[in-house]
Amino acid sequence: MNRHPHIAVVGATGAVGIEMIKTLEKRQFPVGKLTLLASARSVGKKLQFQGQDVTVQELTPSSFHGIDIALFSAGGGISREFAPIAAKAGCVVVDNSSAFRMDESVPLVVPEINGADALHHKGIIANPNCTTAITLMALHPLHKAFGVTRVFASSYQAVSGTGAKAIEELENQVSQVVKGQPVTHEVYPHQIAFNVLPHVDSFLDTGYTKEEMKLENEGRKIMHHPTFRASITCVRVPVYRAHSVAISAEFLKPVDVESARRVLAQAPGLDVVDDPSSNLYPLPLKVAEKYNCEVGRLRKDCALDNGLCFWVVGDQLLKGAALNAVQIAELLLR
Amino acid sequence: MNRHPHIAVVGATGAVGIEMIKTLEKRQFPVGKLTLLASARSVGKKLQFQGQDVTVQELTPSSFHGIDIALFSAGGGISREFAPIAAKAGCVVVDNSSAFRMDESVPLVVPEINGADALHHKGIIANPNCTTAITLMALHPLHKAFGVTRVFASSYQAVSGTGAKAIEELENQVSQVVKGQPVTHEVYPHQIAFNVLPHVDSFLDTGYTKEEMKLENEGRKIMHHPTFRASITCVRVPVYRAHSVAISAEFLKPVDVESARRVLAQAPGLDVVDDPSSNLYPLPLKVAEKYNCEVGRLRKDCALDNGLCFWVVGDQLLKGAALNAVQIAELLLR
Repeated sequence: MNRHPHIAVVGATGAVGIEMIKTLEKRQFPVGKLTLLASARSVGKKLQFQGQDVTVQELTPSSFHGIDIALFSAGGGISREFAPIAAKAGCVVVDNSSAFRMDESVPLVVPEINGADALHHKGIIANPNCTTAITLMALHPLHKAFGVTRVFASSYQAVSGTGAKAIEELENQVSQVVKGQPVTHEVYPHQIAFNVLPHVDSFLDTGYTKEEMKLENEGRKIMHHPTFRASITCVRVPVYRAHSVAISAEFLKPVDVESARRVLAQAPGLDVVDDPSSNLYPLPLKVAEKYNCEVGRLRKDCALDNGLCFWVVGDQLLKGAALNAVQIAELLLR
Repeated sequence: MNRHPHIAVVGATGAVGIEMIKTLEKRQFPVGKLTLLASARSVGKKLQFQGQDVTVQELTPSSFHGIDIALFSAGGGISREFAPIAAKAGCVVVDNSSAFRMDESVPLVVPEINGADALHHKGIIANPNCTTAITLMALHPLHKAFGVTRVFASSYQAVSGTGAKAIEELENQVSQVVKGQPVTHEVYPHQIAFNVLPHVDSFLDTGYTKEEMKLENEGRKIMHHPTFRASITCVRVPVYRAHSVAISAEFLKPVDVESARRVLAQAPGLDVVDDPSSNLYPLPLKVAEKYNCEVGRLRKDCALDNGLCFWVVGDQLLKGAALNAVQIAELLLR
C-alpha cells in the first residue's frame, strides 16, 4: 500500500460521508489525494478538506482507477454495484453498508476487537452495524475476561443514524409542535418528535427487524463466537446523535462489578463513566462527536446467575461508522 | 361501603390528581361528594368536576372525617404521614406512592390481575409503580398461560411520570434549543430534551435505581409469584406521556407467537397492536390518554429457549396511576 494513499469517499455528501472526511483530517490520516464521489445530483458541490475545497465528482464505474482505498457509505445498493468494480480496479473498499457484512470472503472488522481480520481481505472489508459496533466495544472485553454466552438488549437510536433527512424531520416536527402546527412526516412512518418508534430498518417475517438480527449475526463474526446469542429490541428515539444500548449479559465465568470495571477501564476506545452518586453515567448528548464509546450503570444482573447489566453509548456516526472505517484504513497502512 | 361514597383526592392539583378527578368523572364513578385536598399553597384553587367548581382544601389530620375513600397521590412522605390517619378515621386509602407497597399488611393491586387481594385491606391499598403495572398488564396473562420465570426489560419513560414540573422542563428546553439559547434544567440532573437519561428515581448501593427494583419486587407480590426474577434498566426519554417497555420473557412452558397472541387478545385492559407490515405497533404518542395498554412486536426470543419478546405501552398517568386507583375504588363498591 502507498504510504500516502489516494483515498475516495463514496457518498461524500451524506451524514456519514461528511464525518469520514472530518475524521481523515482530524486523525491526520496521510492522505496523498482525496477524491469525493456521490450521485449526479451532488456533483459540483465543494467540501473542505485540510483547508482546501474539494469538488464532488460523479460516481461511475471508472471512478476507481488510481485510488488506493475507497470508503463507501452510500447505501447497500451502491455498494453492491460499485464495491466489486472498485476492488477489481485494485482499490481496497471499506464498506459501511450491510451489503457484504455476512459474506464469508469479506472481513467484518472493529479494529479494537478483530483488527487482524482486516488483513485477510480480498478487496472489500465491511464496517459493522452501528449499534453492534457500539455494543461490542464494551461487550467484547468482558467476553475475553468472562466468556459471554448471550445478551438481552434494547437500543435508544438517534435519528442521524437514518441520515441527514431524518435530522431535518425531527427539527421540523419539533418546531411544528412548538408552533402548534400539524406535524408532518416523510422519513419515518410516524412522528418521531416526543415519541419512540420500536422500528429500525425493515421487518422480517419472524417479527424481528433486520437491524435487530445484526447484533447476533455480526457479533458472532466479529467476536469469532459462533454460539453467541443476542435478543434485542431496536428503538428510534428523538435524539439527534449517539446511540445508547441497555444490556443484560450472561457469562460462563462468575462476574462481579469490580472485576468488570477493571476490565472495561483497560479496554481501548472505551471510557468508563459510572458514578451514580454524582449522577454520572453515559449520555448521548455528551458522547455525541466523541471518538470513544462510554459505558456505565454497571451492576449485577438480577435475573442471571453470572450476569452483568450495563449501559453503552457511542456516537454512531463515528465509532458506529466513519471512525471505524478510517481506523480500518489505518490498519491497511501499517 | 356507602353506595355513593364521599371521595377525597389527596394531591388533587398534581399531574396524577388531575387525572384521578377526570377518571372518576369519565367512568361515572358514583361519587356522593368530592373533597379535594392539597398542600397549603394550592388551597383555594378551583377544579372542575361534573360541571361544578370544587375548591381545593388544605390537607390536615382532620381532613378525613366522613370520607369513605381517599385516593392519595402526593408523594411518599405525605402518604406515610396521612394515610394511617385517614385509615384510622375509617376511610379506605388507595395510595399511589411507594410508601406501603411492600408492607405485608397492605394489598398491592392491579384489578385485572389480583383484584381479590383488595378486599383483604386493613384501611390502605397500594397502587403499583407505573412501569410495573404497564408491564404486568401484558406479562401476567402470559404468565397464567405459560408460567413466567424471569424477564429482561428496558423502559422508555415519559416525563409526566415525574410530574407537572418535568413536563414544563421539557417544553422549556425544547424552546431553548429551537431558539439557540442555553439550556437550563432543575427537575432532572441533565438536559432531557434530545437526550435519554438512564436514571429514574434514586440510586441504591447496588448500582440499581429504586425504580428498577420495583418490577421484581412488586411483580412478585401482584402475581403471587415469589420466585419471579426481573432485570430492568429504567430510562427517561423526551416523551410527554405514556411509558414504553421492551421485554424478553422466559417461560416454563414452550411458547409460540400465535398462542401468545391469542392469550393477549383475550386479556382485559390490553389491546394487541401488532401488524409490522402496516407499520402498526404500540406508540406512546398514540397510547397517551388511553385507558387500555397496548402490546405488540411479538416474536420468539433469540436468546431464550422458551422465550418471547414484546413491547408494551401504557399511559402511566392512567393505568400506571389514576385509572388503576379508580378501578380499585370500583372494586370496593362491589
